[in-house]
Amino acid sequence: MKITGIGLYLPPKIETAEQLSKKINKSVDWIISKTGVVERRISEIDVDEMGAIAAREALNGDKPDLILNASGVGRQVIPDTSVFFQRELNLEGVPSFSIHATCLSFLVALKAANDFLYNGSFKKILIISSDRGTKGRNFDEPESAALLGDGAAAVLVEKSNNNEGSCLEYWKMQTYSSGADLTEVRGGGTKLHPQDSQTKLSDNLFSMNGPQIYRLARKKIYKMLLEMLKDQKIKTTDIDLVIPHQASITAIEAYIHYGNFNKEQVVNVISKTGNCVAASLPMSLAMAYNNKQISRGDRLYLTGTGAGLSIISSLIKF
Amino acid sequence: MKITGIGLYLPPKIETAEQLSKKINKSVDWIISKTGVVERRISEIDVDEMGAIAAREALNGDKPDLILNASGVGRQVIPDTSVFFQRELNLEGVPSFSIHATCLSFLVALKAANDFLYNGSFKKILIISSDRGTKGRNFDEPESAALLGDGAAAVLVEKSNNNEGSCLEYWKMQTYSSGADLTEVRGGGTKLHPQDSQTKLSDNLFSMNGPQIYRLARKKIYKMLLEMLKDQKIKTTDIDLVIPHQASITAIEAYIHYGNFNKEQVVNVISKTGNCVAASLPMSLAMAYNNKQISRGDRLYLTGTGAGLSIISSLIKF
Repeated sequence: MKITGIGLYLPPKIETAEQLSKKINKSVDWIISKTGVVERRISEIDVDEMGAIAAREALNGDKPDLILNASGVGRQVIPDTSVFFQRELNLEGVPSFSIHATCLSFLVALKAANDFLYNGSFKKILIISSDRGTKGRNFDEPESAALLGDGAAAVLVEKSNNNEGSCLEYWKMQTYSSGADLTEVRGGGTKLHPQDSQTKLSDNLFSMNGPQIYRLARKKIYKMLLEMLKDQKIKTTDIDLVIPHQASITAIEAYIHYGNFNKEQVVNVISKTGNCVAASLPMSLAMAYNNKQISRGDRLYLTGTGAGLSIISSLIKF
Repeated sequence: MKITGIGLYLPPKIETAEQLSKKINKSVDWIISKTGVVERRISEIDVDEMGAIAAREALNGDKPDLILNASGVGRQVIPDTSVFFQRELNLEGVPSFSIHATCLSFLVALKAANDFLYNGSFKKILIISSDRGTKGRNFDEPESAALLGDGAAAVLVEKSNNNEGSCLEYWKMQTYSSGADLTEVRGGGTKLHPQDSQTKLSDNLFSMNGPQIYRLARKKIYKMLLEMLKDQKIKTTDIDLVIPHQASITAIEAYIHYGNFNKEQVVNVISKTGNCVAASLPMSLAMAYNNKQISRGDRLYLTGTGAGLSIISSLIKF
């Protein structure tokens, strides 16, 4: 597996911590110390158009034979968002579907793409993550409201046939449903259906218990990192770049403190983007790539937590 | 790939065409002639519990190393429903995520499972489709309201190591986003967010233009069938059983008329179940299996359309 194209869409409109502070009734210092988010982008176009802009950059004129939507929240319940990406990209006929593992959708899609390519099922797979988390912010829950931002990123993945040995070296996922209620949008489905009288507006908004997720996840993530290092017979210094989900500044800094990585080894863009749900991981990859922090043959550790609670630990040779 | 376990959940509560006729202001004859649905099941438990009942039957005491939710509509927006299946099944730790291709989610999950097994990524994959379409019926749109029913089914899939040659012989998908607005639940995402004032209640209900889907899909499905027959060098008489998505009686009968299959070769359970969204395909498989219509080594043609508009043509050796 080789990533042959990368695209990014950062919406132009910026909302600063100062602008947000009035909406959630908290100070700028509170926002930045709690979340690390100095500013986030607010998209004025919907997820399908956002994703298509990133996808066009990743494709660079090429045509995929599979479109995988790997976003957190869809454009609508039915059809899944992959179809709307296809429509925006004018790729009528190309098979399109979605993979949903909330914030980890991109890493699951990368694994699925790897196995599809390995089996010869597809040749050029376009993965798009596009999220507009600011549409579902709950201003009565200031911490999660201060975290969310909008953005999109896309990659094109093909079978590796180069000499640099590009591949998915390691991939492991664990899901702990005991943490299912720690990150939720409770509405929008069969449980609290929009037409049920007991469904409240807040059920349709993003809700997250950051501190408790951190407590549940920290040791598990560390253990999965150690397992990967042992399995791959490498040390943390053999990893060129750690690309974590931009969940919160606390989560990102934990990779540095507990994972024994240098600050420079860990991509940290949350101050400029916020937590962009599933788009955060590929956006971090794209921003690091655009910033010349990634070269062909580099070893990248992609990891993070998602609602579920799920954790993925994965290593790619770029 | 070999299907080693099959489970079914048919909710006990029946709603007859007569009971429904009052809700949609149409006669029993109109309902049955338009949709073929004589009765459908109405679930009083939610999709996670429904799916878990089917899954327990499919597992038969075994433990999967991956849980794939392959349903049409989720329990809620976040987390994805796989997590809630895991919680119901008491399988803490097992990686869980969702594949979403509306009514074709099960066939996409089957393909992904096949490639995961082929690559050695997982060994025992549990696929669950559970849908409660009656929660989102729009009684002002009588045809789609008369189609929908509730149900769940699950399969356990393992690497084939038997002598019968169980495998996924053929799988092809096409998506035509020109038909994206023919089957929709427009709300529940970023486009018509529940907190947007322009979002109407009907945006959160199921909407389907059956006759136009039929017009768009019929020739394409037929062409995909011919392609499969040519690729596999077989004739329709070499197929033991056709298991189509139970979209409508017109769609099912089209397989018989245009596909040149005998009536007995095509699973037709829509009169008893209605269109159960993504659950219809594995429910049809499970009902045919329970009815002793499937033996090990049989050649099954699984096919159908889903919102998108997507079409899948697939052949498995059971």
